Order: sequence, then structure tokens, then C-alpha cells
Amino acid sequence: MTGHAGDVSQVHDIEILALNPTVKNYATFKPTVVSKKDKENWARLDHCKKGCELKNDFEDVKPTTLTERGALFESSRCLKCADAPCQKGCPTQLDIKSFISSIATKNYYGAAKTIFSDNPLGLTCGMVCPVSSLCQYGCNLAATEEGPINIGGLQQFATDVFKKMNIPQIRDPSLTPLDQLPESYKAKIALIGCGPTSISCATFLARLGYTDVTIFEKEQYLGGLSSSEIPNYRLDYEVVEFEIKMMKDLGVKVEYGKRLGENGFTVESLQKQGFEAVYLGIGMPEPKIDPVFNELVSEQGFFTSKEFLPKVSKASKGGLCGCKSQLPQLNGRVIVLGAGDTAFDCATSAFRCGASRVTVCFRRGFSDMRAVPEEVDIAKDERCEFLPYVLPKQVIKRDGKVVAMEFYKTEKGDDGNYGVDEDQFFRVKCDYIISAFGSQIGSVAESCTPLQFNKWGTADIDPMTMTSKHAEWLFAGGDLVGNGTTVEAVNDGKIASWGIHKYLQSLHGIPIPDGPPQLPNFFTPIDLVDISVEMCGMKFPNPFGLASATPATSAAMIRRSFEQGWGFAVTKTFSLDKDLVTNVSPRIVRGTTSGHHFGPGQGAFLNIELISEKTCHYWCRAIGELKRDFPDRIVIASIMCGFNKEDWTQLARMAEASGADGIELNLSCPHGMGEKGMGLACGQDTELVFHICQWVRAATKLPFFAKLTPNVTEIKEIAKAAHDGGADGVTAINTVSGLMGLKGDSNAWPAIGDEKRTTYGGVSGNATRPIALRAVSSIRKTLPDYPIMATGGADSADATIQFLHCGASVVQICSSVQNQDFTVVQDYITGLKTYLYMQSREDLLKWDGQSPPNEIINKNPKLKGLPKFGKYLLERNRIDTEEKQSIDLQKVKNPLVPSPKPTLPIPSLKDQINRAIPRIGRHDDLKREQQVVALIDEDKCINCGKCYMTCNDSGYQAIKFDGKTHIPLVTDLCTGCDLCLSVCPVPDCITMVPRETVYIPDRGLTVQN
Amino acid sequence: MTGHAGDVSQVHDIEILALNPTVKNYATFKPTVVSKKDKENWARLDHCKKGCELKNDFEDVKPTTLTERGALFESSRCLKCADAPCQKGCPTQLDIKSFISSIATKNYYGAAKTIFSDNPLGLTCGMVCPVSSLCQYGCNLAATEEGPINIGGLQQFATDVFKKMNIPQIRDPSLTPLDQLPESYKAKIALIGCGPTSISCATFLARLGYTDVTIFEKEQYLGGLSSSEIPNYRLDYEVVEFEIKMMKDLGVKVEYGKRLGENGFTVESLQKQGFEAVYLGIGMPEPKIDPVFNELVSEQGFFTSKEFLPKVSKASKGGLCGCKSQLPQLNGRVIVLGAGDTAFDCATSAFRCGASRVTVCFRRGFSDMRAVPEEVDIAKDERCEFLPYVLPKQVIKRDGKVVAMEFYKTEKGDDGNYGVDEDQFFRVKCDYIISAFGSQIGSVAESCTPLQFNKWGTADIDPMTMTSKHAEWLFAGGDLVGNGTTVEAVNDGKIASWGIHKYLQSLHGIPIPDGPPQLPNFFTPIDLVDISVEMCGMKFPNPFGLASATPATSAAMIRRSFEQGWGFAVTKTFSLDKDLVTNVSPRIVRGTTSGHHFGPGQGAFLNIELISEKTCHYWCRAIGELKRDFPDRIVIASIMCGFNKEDWTQLARMAEASGADGIELNLSCPHGMGEKGMGLACGQDTELVFHICQWVRAATKLPFFAKLTPNVTEIKEIAKAAHDGGADGVTAINTVSGLMGLKGDSNAWPAIGDEKRTTYGGVSGNATRPIALRAVSSIRKTLPDYPIMATGGADSADATIQFLHCGASVVQICSSVQNQDFTVVQDYITGLKTYLYMQSREDLLKWDGQSPPNEIINKNPKLKGLPKFGKYLLERNRIDTEEKQSIDLQKVKNPLVPSPKPTLPIPSLKDQINRAIPRIGRHDDLKREQQVVALIDEDKCINCGKCYMTCNDSGYQAIKFDGKTHIPLVTDLCTGCDLCLSVCPVPDCITMVPRETVYIPDRGLTVQN
Repeated sequence: MTGHAGDVSQVHDIEILALNPTVKNYATFKPTVVSKKDKENWARLDHCKKGCELKNDFEDVKPTTLTERGALFESSRCLKCADAPCQKGCPTQLDIKSFISSIATKNYYGAAKTIFSDNPLGLTCGMVCPVSSLCQYGCNLAATEEGPINIGGLQQFATDVFKKMNIPQIRDPSLTPLDQLPESYKAKIALIGCGPTSISCATFLARLGYTDVTIFEKEQYLGGLSSSEIPNYRLDYEVVEFEIKMMKDLGVKVEYGKRLGENGFTVESLQKQGFEAVYLGIGMPEPKIDPVFNELVSEQGFFTSKEFLPKVSKASKGGLCGCKSQLPQLNGRVIVLGAGDTAFDCATSAFRCGASRVTVCFRRGFSDMRAVPEEVDIAKDERCEFLPYVLPKQVIKRDGKVVAMEFYKTEKGDDGNYGVDEDQFFRVKCDYIISAFGSQIGSVAESCTPLQFNKWGTADIDPMTMTSKHAEWLFAGGDLVGNGTTVEAVNDGKIASWGIHKYLQSLHGIPIPDGPPQLPNFFTPIDLVDISVEMCGMKFPNPFGLASATPATSAAMIRRSFEQGWGFAVTKTFSLDKDLVTNVSPRIVRGTTSGHHFGPGQGAFLNIELISEKTCHYWCRAIGELKRDFPDRIVIASIMCGFNKEDWTQLARMAEASGADGIELNLSCPHGMGEKGMGLACGQDTELVFHICQWVRAATKLPFFAKLTPNVTEIKEIAKAAHDGGADGVTAINTVSGLMGLKGDSNAWPAIGDEKRTTYGGVSGNATRPIALRAVSSIRKTLPDYPIMATGGADSADATIQFLHCGASVVQICSSVQNQDFTVVQDYITGLKTYLYMQSREDLLKWDGQSPPNEIINKNPKLKGLPKFGKYLLERNRIDTEEKQSIDLQKVKNPLVPSPKPTLPIPSLKDQINRAIPRIGRHDDLKREQQVVALIDEDKCINCGKCYMTCNDSGYQAIKFDGKTHIPLVTDLCTGCDLCLSVCPVPDCITMVPRETVYIPDRGLTVQN
Repeated sequence: MTGHAGDVSQVHDIEILALNPTVKNYATFKPTVVSKKDKENWARLDHCKKGCELKNDFEDVKPTTLTERGALFESSRCLKCADAPCQKGCPTQLDIKSFISSIATKNYYGAAKTIFSDNPLGLTCGMVCPVSSLCQYGCNLAATEEGPINIGGLQQFATDVFKKMNIPQIRDPSLTPLDQLPESYKAKIALIGCGPTSISCATFLARLGYTDVTIFEKEQYLGGLSSSEIPNYRLDYEVVEFEIKMMKDLGVKVEYGKRLGENGFTVESLQKQGFEAVYLGIGMPEPKIDPVFNELVSEQGFFTSKEFLPKVSKASKGGLCGCKSQLPQLNGRVIVLGAGDTAFDCATSAFRCGASRVTVCFRRGFSDMRAVPEEVDIAKDERCEFLPYVLPKQVIKRDGKVVAMEFYKTEKGDDGNYGVDEDQFFRVKCDYIISAFGSQIGSVAESCTPLQFNKWGTADIDPMTMTSKHAEWLFAGGDLVGNGTTVEAVNDGKIASWGIHKYLQSLHGIPIPDGPPQLPNFFTPIDLVDISVEMCGMKFPNPFGLASATPATSAAMIRRSFEQGWGFAVTKTFSLDKDLVTNVSPRIVRGTTSGHHFGPGQGAFLNIELISEKTCHYWCRAIGELKRDFPDRIVIASIMCGFNKEDWTQLARMAEASGADGIELNLSCPHGMGEKGMGLACGQDTELVFHICQWVRAATKLPFFAKLTPNVTEIKEIAKAAHDGGADGVTAINTVSGLMGLKGDSNAWPAIGDEKRTTYGGVSGNATRPIALRAVSSIRKTLPDYPIMATGGADSADATIQFLHCGASVVQICSSVQNQDFTVVQDYITGLKTYLYMQSREDLLKWDGQSPPNEIINKNPKLKGLPKFGKYLLERNRIDTEEKQSIDLQKVKNPLVPSPKPTLPIPSLKDQINRAIPRIGRHDDLKREQQVVALIDEDKCINCGKCYMTCNDSGYQAIKFDGKTHIPLVTDLCTGCDLCLSVCPVPDCITMVPRETVYIPDRGLTVQN
């Protein structure tokens, strides 16, 4: 029993819980000595701040990795700049702002498609790219306090969700089908070394249509350095397998165990076997070693990075080798030599092999270090040590084992060069030495003939085409040509694919004309989904159209919108010449409905813009030209005049004559026009709406729609009047009348002229979407089959689907174009296709849109009651560490499975319309006997206590909050109101679950009737 | 002429500018070698990444410093946790979440008041606190990807704005006035050393009422280490002066040139002079020096930090010494010894004194370094070098000048201790050596008698009271007792003030009872402002009340709200027992109107909660009890029943009998109740409203208000009906009917029961504010003197003032309490007081609320056309550097001036009501002849091109965007629509300025009528 009915004393006697904030009448008082100690109880320690045990710990360490929540936050922060510098910094020239835009709308497939189109190893690169010197390097947000966008993390997030969707790559069927391509596409192509650069090259070749592409790999596993050298805590082997699978989806073949120089396998041998083009992507296979290490072997405690890292990989990457190899045991002090990225991989790996201390020793000073900050910081956070200004002199051994390293001291001269004084040296004790002085081509060079190497030891190629300077059929890229990062290697493969294509086609007498290369984008079955829809005889290629608003200010803009993919457009409203208007300025202001938010992503705008300033003649001509040039798109003429039969008749006939597909009657503009007896002055009255529709019906055979205002008591009544008057459908809703806000001096914005006068304007954007969804669904419930065009905060495929589920057939959009530009439609298109496609796959039905289902974390019961701070965190770490020691590192966690085939039909857009309607109804019909209560997932909880606060001051005091652990606890008083979930910062941390007891309301005092 | 009227070819021929995004049909193609080079053109370089010239550069370097834009963003990110760990990490136990909440509502005074209440050096601490080990240490957001809040930066921002307001500190007049305090408050109190700890102690003593407090300072300037040692680029001397002024505002006296040990000035001499209590806050005055530096002097190239930093301060801090001293010239290589915070101040200062290279050399490894990351990172970013594992052996001189330093090599043993092998040593060349091995009490110790020092060299005190263990009248704190950070020193002063108070009072026979110390909060004339308001004979202590909604669910909650400061409350609506309701669950969901935002700060909620589940008897009794216990607060009974005279009469009479001050008729609940013929079912019809009001008028003499629904065509008509029916006023608006959103499976949220049914709910919160502001102002224009209670998105003093300007007298609040808790009202109260106070100061009239006016940056014309990236940035740096060399560092930039006295009357709340009304009117009345155009401030521009994008696709193609500099340019085509400003991420970067030419609309084709 939850209530206290009948208890006389209780009227003001419920418990207001102790930890909720109260007003402070005095300064707080706590001696420094006490707070110094107390604060340790609350420390959100860095992973290793107080020492940590990394042995056997191969969990992801990247600070960039994002949850969905984090990805949504970060993507909303991105400005989506014009001519964005992030793209210019990416070697593969990824359209970064587009993929981030798609993440922001929860269209993760759209994001992944953008990424994989330019970078077939988009997930790997999201994980390992040194973004601080690439895409983030030029991020305009670096000019603000919040700093640049976490681009790598976002790229990883979107492509990882796509990986979970498990959808195959296919070749774009709009390209010439394979069986119609000339023989030249059957040319045999060999790629040597199955690392990133070859995977990229082979993928693009396959997308172009080449069907006989083979990669030769020396190892029994694929992936190159991604597999053998990059540690699992930076790049999971599953990722490598996934990207190779995508390549294989296109038919690329792989041969294992083909090592250059072994068994007569050379570049020239391939040519002899009939391979018409060869791509070398073998990296630099041999280590550079300082002579002081000559003859040292691993048993003595010496490794090169080229020995050490693959050993670690084989022991720690599930599925890599299928062997039972063990991690090298480095129990003691480890010295790593070198200060490149590899040195830091060795250093952090050494901790995982048991090192008690790791010191990275290098010749130069800190500011001249070669490694990227991303890598150095991980090592620093793990309490790796650094010793700059040293050069190896000799290794000191005892009993055949390394015991110390002797170094010369280096010094930087005034000229910036480093010198060494051979009289100055000293020893550093150590048990193991790992040399990471880089790599070289070594003896493999011979087998690469006719490839030659330049004085820097890299392959001698034309960097614009990746062609060997000594053989036009031979190409090379990646580390071999001096492009050492994964993403550069990927780009080299992409560039080379075009070079190979041009070469092979010319060989077969089919020269490729000059001009921009046409490398096909990433493609999957999702892209084949049909999203066209028919309404009133009009066939919309997709349901996304420009609303009669600012994006339709001119014909040229509508033209550009069609070029970007929009399915239809409603013109800016035009009138008869006698009603021509002139605007005031300023007239379109940003919203205040989402707090103090500056920049794009405005949740609302308010405008006092009138209808088009252009003449009806302009618009009629424009419509004709648009239909001529874009016959597959729908153009709807928006018209307005006063309550006058002749005017409506004249305008409707002009519109029909212009060639428009349909007409929209603007009966709803909420500002200015009403004063002239137009717009909302007509649309708020069922009688007027009925008559206007009758007049227009008589004047034209075109389908026409009454655009309705939400500024009425019951919009469905107005819709009914339009219906009864003969309108073919309605558009809902026009903007909501409002006053956006006042400045401190009590002047509104917009304020016009010296007098700073203002008028009520129309609010648009997401802030109006709840009103629009209600309007559309209530019209639908009143008029079950009546066509509706929805408008009001459609800003994504996701929102569009909601409008369809509420009864609309198409959506009109303005505010989200104002926030960005016309290309957003591509995101909406892929988002909508993905939604439909996912309905055909039973395994994806439990996703919410493109959000994977709430992951059930396999909770360790030992961790219960241990929050992630202070001494509790230390205890968690202890338990974690303990469990890690017995873990089987080679166990494959999520084995790659073939992409499931759709087992359900892919629904059409039409099938989506009205889906939500049956469940929207009266409050009285809701089941009072089926109630819920809140359930808190302690593991996801970040202990902020927001649930506790809102339950206390706006709810039922039904959540307790432990004063020491800050873990909240839902009590029997919970009434399931859902406020706690509404303000919880962590999605899915609180869920509402069925109530198991009967709900008895607390009546306060006994009911007396 | 901006149009193209008459040009036949133009219908689709305007220029769509080149850099706006377009859909990509193919993968992009750029060889790695090209993009590698190109990306450098776009680099947003770190300040010193490519080398920088820091000589003479004393500009702020703190990465935490925030603009208003940054502060608003960061404060909105803060969760305002229950029992917040940030506060627990702060030595002064600052109520951090409260001050951040105030920043988020633009109530910077409210934030500053919170800060200075607990920390009289709040601005200094905002600038210099090592937050990573204090407040940020426990930030719950550290558990998320975005990481902890920039608390220091926010604290600096708010207190800095308050500094600009220039408002004096006064003693809280609600405390016993000085002239009524006993003699004991006239006791002479001496504080020695005018650094942070004494300033804090003296401030609290003065707040308590002590009138004879004197600080003795050895220098001719005040501030202690803040002035002499912390470099200007971390802590501006202006800040120190400001905080000392605030202390002096309370009457604290200062004597200069009083150095302990000189001229017989000792602690005991003060006692002899009649000082009844003495506080020692002298820090550690002497350097610790390694014997290898004995006899070395600065002319030879050797400094201790205690010599070096004050020299730098005197030369670089305007107003500090009034002398003409010059910076030490360190042209050459500098070695800094030590790895504490002071060492890093020396290192970064050395660059500013001309050092070509600076190397910080220290005994331990990196992970054992003492300095806080905040300091190390600044040095690292300036390309400071590091040399760990070294111990000074000897200084090498040539011709009497330092030329090198010889070091022993240290090594860390397995036990974690560092050892040194005296056989291993080496030299490092250098021209200057700065020793920063910490400080000690030294010879001054004698003059501190009877204070004694313990074995660690710190003062022997009781850390709970800061009392000397050897003299009860002697207190000490700060560095002297081992609390080395500024904020600890401040807290020691605060704790000591209470100890001194207790001691002095007991001395005078007035013992202070045990219990929580009562140290007064910060107080200014703002806090004296009257914000009460009368309406319908009800006197509201302030205009903030609980709406009839979730925060008023029970009497106990209303009670708690009154305790937190709320001025009034409207009860949750109650009905007659026959109409008792039972809720469904879930029923209150988060908004979707601000994008994918999780956590508090929801811009909207939607609820399908019904009226109170409690009986009318409960509520009537509760009202009586509340009025009994809080007679100065207003309690309004909210009632509802069907369209039935008897019911309304009965309920109204019950409410009157309960003792309520007034009644609100709920004629507007949009869900559930309407189906029963109640709520909005009554409120949408003028006839019904009129009759209900008549009935209630007849039943009661109490003032009563009709609560109106916005879900009507014209709310002012309903208001008029209420007015005509005899209601004393109206409440506007109830929630807006809506459907918040659907999930991917087409189910709404809230979804009730197995069937997942839903119903339309009421949208509340900021998303509805534009509708509410419109409603209130339109009622006001219709009924000029009619009392209005506003509700609908009031979430701050700022929003409240807007409602007052639109005609409301008080505001009712729900959603922002749901987001947080009842204590938010304190922020609203100080915010409103500040607004009114600022109206009395002519110099503050040009502020927008509490936002300082757009700062005019003194632009250097040489920087025009140079954006802040790539080669342009390098060129900017070159110009900057050049100019810095001739700058007068000692010039005072913003001299401290006395706080101006108010010259205008402080307005009452009543004066604010209706201020905006005269300027809200018809669109037709707006001046078409006074238009505006956009003006872009190139200096604020971050080159994102959002203005260009929106102007292109939603505007007039009136902005050009340079392909190389990314600087936008507004052309003659601008129509002043304001969209560019609306999406610009940088406030005040774009402003709308009067158009100088006549505006001629582009009619598209010649007008034919």
C-alpha cells in the first residue's frame, strides 16, 4: 500500500529527502584538512592515476570511443561548415560534415555510406587515425572554447553501428552490369600484401567492375599492420575482419602464405602468370636496427618492434592465428627505444605483458618527438616514463641477460640539430629492451623488381598516379612509398585503383577520357529501396519537399534543391499583382526554445516574412521551366488572395496553366497577411475555408491542398471544411503564432525601425513538431483516407517516419534547410531507405530506428553497489584486474557471420502511413490497471542524482539516494510518472517496467463521499 | 538596384555560389601527396606548434578562459547533481552547481554572489585553481565522453562579469547593525601579510562585524604571491586589486612596508600594541637552495624563483609597483630546476624574458612530477623541454658566467624511491639557471614567536581552528601551515575567522554556542532591492510561484518550496470527491524539441497527468496549514469541476474556507479532463467560461483567476469572457496540446499498457514560451489593466522579466523545477533584483540584461583579411609579435575606479509590467522604409560559412565566401532577412545595421498590373 489515506498527521509530514539541495543562509565551513581527505572519496580517478594493473588487459583504451549518447551530443556540436576544412585535412577527402550530419539525425547507415564511399577502411581509420594532424587539424571549432570535433570517434561510432547491422556491400546496379562490361574488366590484377592499401585498392577496382582481382598475403591472416602490429586495445581484430568481408562481398579473392621472395614468388613472376597490373602494398617489412643490438635475441630480453608486436597480437587477438601462443612475459623494467607511434604501441603493450615499469627513451627533446599526441597521451596516462636526449651506447648483460642500457647524452644545438658528446654517458637499469627505430624494405626489395627505391629508401613512383617510374603496369602505395599512416595507405590504394583502371583500359584500347575520376561510391541493398509514393495521382520520387517558405524564395533555388535530390517543392506563395507585398527587415530570428544556443541546429525560428515579393507571372513561368527540366519532380504552386471568388479563380487557373502538378492554398500565414484579410484570416473560419475550396475546385482540375493554421481551437474541423469544400487534401501545419522573446530593454527581436516595433510571427522548426504530429494525426482520425502533406519540424528521416505513421504521405521542410543547406535531403533519403530495409530483417526489428537495442551488459555480481569513483572504483579495478588474469584472450567475442538475407518483404512507403493511428485515442481508454515503475541500471548510472532530485521536488519522493555511494534506489512509493527517466542524462539507464502490485493512489485524506 | 525586374532570362539564372555543398556522385579523388600539402593551408595551429615568439607576451594563456558564448554552452552541459561531488572537492566548499545554474540563466550576479559568499577570492581562484585535483576531480560528467565541466573557467567568467558591473560589497543589513554590536566587535585584530589567506580572513571578520581589522604588508603592494609570483598571463593584477577593493569596501585597513623582523615589527610587538588576535598569513618567504648554488648571483646567470618571479611581476604588471623596472633579459638557454608549479611559472616566464630554450630539470620521472597538469600543459604547449631523472652536481662557469650545469643521473628503485649513482653524471649547456626548489620560513620564524614550527617546517597549529598550539590568540593559515594552493589559503582564512571570532567573543565573555558556524554570505546593494508585487490585494514577496502541476503534488512539497524561497504556490488542481481521478503511467515524458538531448535542461516536457489524486479535504486542510506556517506567502487553490453551478460554488466556498488567498479555475487541462467535460472542454468556449466565472464570483469574495488554454483560436477572446464573467484575472497559458513523438515501431511515448496506447498530452517548458508570450501580451492589449499570472516556459529571471514586460504580474513555474529542484528560485530572485538594480546605474543601461555590451575590439588594420588559420595565422602572429616588442607592459589597462553610485531610482517590479506592449502591433505598422542589412565582424568570424550556406539555400545569395580565406562578404543583394545572424555560431559576429539605400524588392518579372 503506497498511500497514507486517513493518517491525520500526514498533510505536511512526508519525508523530503536529506540530500536534495537547500538554500544556504551561511557560508559553508569545512577545515582544509578535512576536505583534503574527503575529496578522495569522490574522485573520478583517471584509469591509472593511482596505479593500475594492465597485465592481460586488452580492452579498448581510446578516449575517443563514443556511446550513442556521446555521438549524438558531439554530432550536434558540429557546425557542418561550408567548404569544410576537416575534409581538406583527410587524405581520403572524406565528406566529414555530411556523415556527422547523418549521425545527428540518427541515420547511421547514411553516415557509414558516406564514410565507406571514400574510405573502404572507414572503421579502422575512425579508430587509428591521428586526427589531430588530419581532419581535426583545421576544424573551425578549434577557434572556440569547446575545441574541435571528435571526428575519429564519430566515424568509429557510425561505422561500428553499420557493422552491427551486418549488411553486405554490393556493386551499384546503376553502373554498367558486370556481364555487359568489355573484356578489359576481366583483366587479371594482383595486389601484394593484404593490408589497408591493398584492401582499399581492390575494393575500388571491384566497384569499377573488375572481376579478377587477387590479393596475395604472406601470412595466414589478413589485415597487414592492422592485424599484426596495431594492438587490440586500439584496433579490434573484428574490425579488420569486417572490412575484409566487405571487400570480399564484391568478389575480391585472397591467397594466403604468398611471401615475396619465397618459392619464386616475385612481382615479375606475377607478370609472367598473366597478371596485367600489379599493386604493391607490402609496407616496410624489416626493422631498422642499431648495430649495438646486433646478435641480441628475445631470450636475452631484446626485441625489435617487428618481433614484439606480432607476438602480442597473436596472443591477444581472437581469431587471428588460431594458435595457442602466449604473450611475451616482460616481468620487470622495460626500455623502449624510439619516439614514433610504434614505440608507444610497444610501450603500452609492454605493460600488458607484465612490465613493472616502461621507459621510452629517445634522442630528441619532447617538442621534437615524432609520435602523434593521441599515442603519447595514452602512454602517459598509463604512467609510462620518458627519457629524452639519449642515444644507445651499449647493452649491458649479465649471465647472458639484459640488465641495463648505456646511453650517450644528446644535446640540441642552436641550429636545431642534435649532437652527441661521446664523453658523456650513463646507465639505466632494465630487464628488457624493445627497439622501435622504424622499418625498411630490406631484402624484399629484390623481389619487387622492376620497382626501384630512392635515396630515402621508399619506392620510386609518380605520387599523382602511384605508378612505378620503371614499369607502367606496376603500382605501389602506403608505407612502401612513404605514406605511413593507415588513412594515407587507404588513399594511395584508391588513387592507384584509378591509375590501374586507366592503364588496363588503355591496354585494351578503351582510353578513359581526362576529367574528374569516377570512382563509384559505397553501395548496399539499402540503396535499392523504393521510397516513392503516390498521392492524388502525383508520383513523388521521394516524400521530401521544400515547404512554401524561404528555401523556395526563387526558381533558381528550387532548381538547386532538385539537383540535390528533393522530391518536390511548393513555391513560395504568390498573389495577384494587386496584392504584391514588400517585406520588412529583420524578419527571421533564431529560436529561444532550446536555451542559449548559438549557431546552426536551431530548434525553432520565428519569421515575420510575408509571401513572395515576386509576381505571379514570375512564378508561373518558373513552374513551367522547372517542370520542363525536372519532369520527374513534383512542383506545387502556392497561392493566396483575399476572400474573393474571382481572385481565387484567377490564381488557380494561372497555376494550372503554368504546368504545376498541384496547388496549395495558403490559408494560414499567421503574420501580416491576416491583416489584409488573407492567410490565417481565411483559414481560421470553417465557412471561409469551405467556400474558398469550392471556388478553387470549380476553377481547376489539378489536385489542391488547403494549408492549415494550427492557431485554431480544432484543426480537424478546418480540415473537414476543406474536405467538404472539395480540396484534395490538406497541408498541416503552417507556423505557430508567437512572440519569440524580448531583450533586456524590453524590445522584441525582430525589432523594426527606429521605433523598434514588432508583430507576432510564425514559429517553425522542431519546437512545433509535437503540435504538428497532433494536428496530422487528429485530421487523420477525423478523415481516414484524406491526403495530408505534413510540415512542422520534419528534420530527418526519423521525424518524417513519425509524420507518415501519423497519417501524412509526404513532408515539407524549411527550418532544417535554414539550419544547413539543400544537401540534407540525401541524409533523409538514405535514412528512410534504411528504415524500410530494416523492416525486412527479423534480426533488426528490435532496433529503435537505427539505434541498436539497449545492450545487456553481462554484469559481474561482485560489482554491485560499487560506483565508479573513490575507493569503490579502486575496488572495482581490483576485481576487474583479478578476473582479467584468467581470461582467454584468443576467444573470439563476436564471430563474423554472413549477412542475413531479408526474410520479410521490404515495405513500401505507403505501408507506413497511419501505422500509429489505431493507438492514439482517449485518456479514458488508457489502462489504469497496467501501470509501470522505474528501474535503474546501476551499471549505467553516473550517480548524478537527477532522478532523486526531480522525484523529490516534482514527484513522489520515491527515490532514495545513498549518501556515500550515490546510488539511487526506487522505493515502493514510485507511481511510474517517468520524470526520472525524462531527466536522466544516460539513455536506457532508467527504464519503466510493469508494476507488479496494484496501484492505489494516495488520496491524502480519506475519501469522504 | 538589387532586383533584376524585367530581365527575361533570369527566372532560373541567379548565381548559386560555388562553395555550397552539392551531392557527390563519385568518391573524391586527391593524391596523398597533394592533400598532405593542402591541409597546411587550413591548420588551426596551436599557439606555438610551429614555434612562437613569447618575448614580452603577457596576454592570458589559460585554456579555461571562456567567452559568454562558451560559458553558456558549458553551463548548460552541467548536470547540477544532487549532493554534487564538485563542491566536496573544493577547499572552500563552494556551491558550484548553484553558481553554474545561475550562469546558465545569464544571472551572473547570482553566480558571483554564490562564489564570493564562500570564497572572497573567487575570481583569483577561478583563474589559478588546479581544478583537476579539486572540484573537477569528482565531476560526475567525467564518466561521460564529454568529460568534466570547466569549473574554473565558469567561475572566472561569472566573477569577471561582476567585476565589470563594479558594485560594492556591503555588510548584510539583516545582521545586527555595527552600532548595536557589543564592544567585543571593536577588538583590534592584526593580520600579517596581505595575501589570499589574510584577505579571506579579514573579509569574513568584517562580514561578522569586526570594525578594527588591520592587515600589515611588507611590500608596497598587496596580494602576496598572487601579485609577486603568479605571472600576469595566469592572473591579471587587476583581479588582485579588485578583490582587495571588495575587502576594503567592508572597512578593513591595510598598512604597507611592515616586514616581520624589521624595525621591531614582530607578532609579539602587535600583541603589545593591543591587538587581541593576530593572524599570520605570510606564506613561506625564503627560497630553499641547493648548496651547489651558494654564492651565485643573478649577474652570473643564477636566480631563485623567489628573486626571478617578483622581478618579472614588477616589470609586467601594470600598477603593481609604479616603478620602471625592466624584465630580466634571459637571451639564451635557460634551465629551471624543480618540478613544482613554481618551476613551471619560471619556465613560461623565462620565454617571456627572451629565452631561446627552456628546459625543466627534475629528480623524478614524469609520473611522479609534483606540478598539476594545468601548469605542465601550458609549458608543454609553449615548447618547454623536460629533463627527468637528474640531480644538480655543480654549476659550470666561464668568465664568471654560468655556461652549463652538471647533473647526476637518478634512477627509481623497485621500492619507488629515487636513488643517485654518483659515478654517473653529465653536462647540459645553459646560460641561465633558475632554482625553484620550493620555499621555507627561514629567518622570519623568530619574529613569529610564539608560533612554533614542526619537523616539516610548517607552523604548529590545530588544523580544525587554525589556532597556534602555543598561543590561543595567534592563528595562522595558508602556505605557512602547509596549505599551499590559493584556495586552501582562502579557506584557512575563512576557518580562522571563525576561530578568531569565537576566541574574541569568549574573551569578552560572550561565548559562541557550538553548532554550525554562521559566517555571513556575500552581500551587495543588489540584495536590498524589493521585488515584491501586489496583485488583486495579494502581496507577493516575489513573483515566483509554483504552477498547479507536479511540483505542487503535495502540501509537503509546497512547504519545502516556501522554505527555499518561493513567493507563492498554486495547489495541484483538486476536484470534488465524486470527480476523483486515478493516473496512468508512464505520463510525463521528455521533450523532443531540442534534438537528441538527454538529461536535465529539457526544453519541453509532455504530460498526460490528470489533476490531483488527493481529495479536496486534503487540500483544504493543507492550505490552512501552509498559511498558518507561511503567512507571508500566497497560496492559491486550484479547482476544477464540470459545467455545473453547484459544483463550482461548492468548490469555491471550500477554497475560501480553507484560508487560501485566491482561487484559480482550471479551465484548460488539455488531456483526460476534457473528456469528462472539464478543463479545456470548458475553457475553449467563451460562453462556458463566462458562466463559470459568474458562478464563482457569486460564491466567493476571494480574488480568482481563470487559467486559460492556448488551444484556442484567440485566447484574448476567452480572457475577455473571464473578465466579463467577473474573474479578477487570468492565468496564461496552460500546456499546449501535442504528441511528443513516436518510436521506430510507431509506438508513442508515453505508451500505456500492453496495447501501448497513447493520448494527446500537454506540452510545457521553453518550447511553449513564444506561444505564452504572445498569449500574455495579446490579453494585455485587449484588457489593458487586467491582472495576469503568466506560465509557460518561465525558467529564469530573464524569462520572467519578458513576461512582466508583456503584461504579467507574477509567473508560475513547473518545467524548470522538473529539470532541477526548488532551489532554482534563489537564482531567479537574485537575477530579478540585479535586473532592477542595473536600471538605476546609467553606466549599466547599455547592457542586455546581465550581458555586457558587445566589446569593441581595437582592431589592428594590419590584420584585416587575415583569418586565424594556416599561413594567415602565421602572418597574424608575426604582426602581433612585432607589436608586442614595443608595448609598455606597466601601463594599467583598466584602472580600478570607485563603484559608481546609482543615479536613477531603482524601479519597482510594477514599473516593469507592460513595458513591451506599446511596441507590439500590426505588421502593417512596421516601417518598410527603415530596413537593415547584415554586417559581419571579421575579427569574431570563425570562418564556418554558415551565413553563406543559409543565405544561399534559404535566402538571397547575398553573401560571398572567399575560397582561400573563408571570410564571408555581404553583397548589395542582402535584404536584411537576419537568417545569417540566426545561424551564426558566434554571438555579435553578425549584426543588423540600417540599410543606407532604398530597398527595392526583386519582383522577378516586371509587375504587369
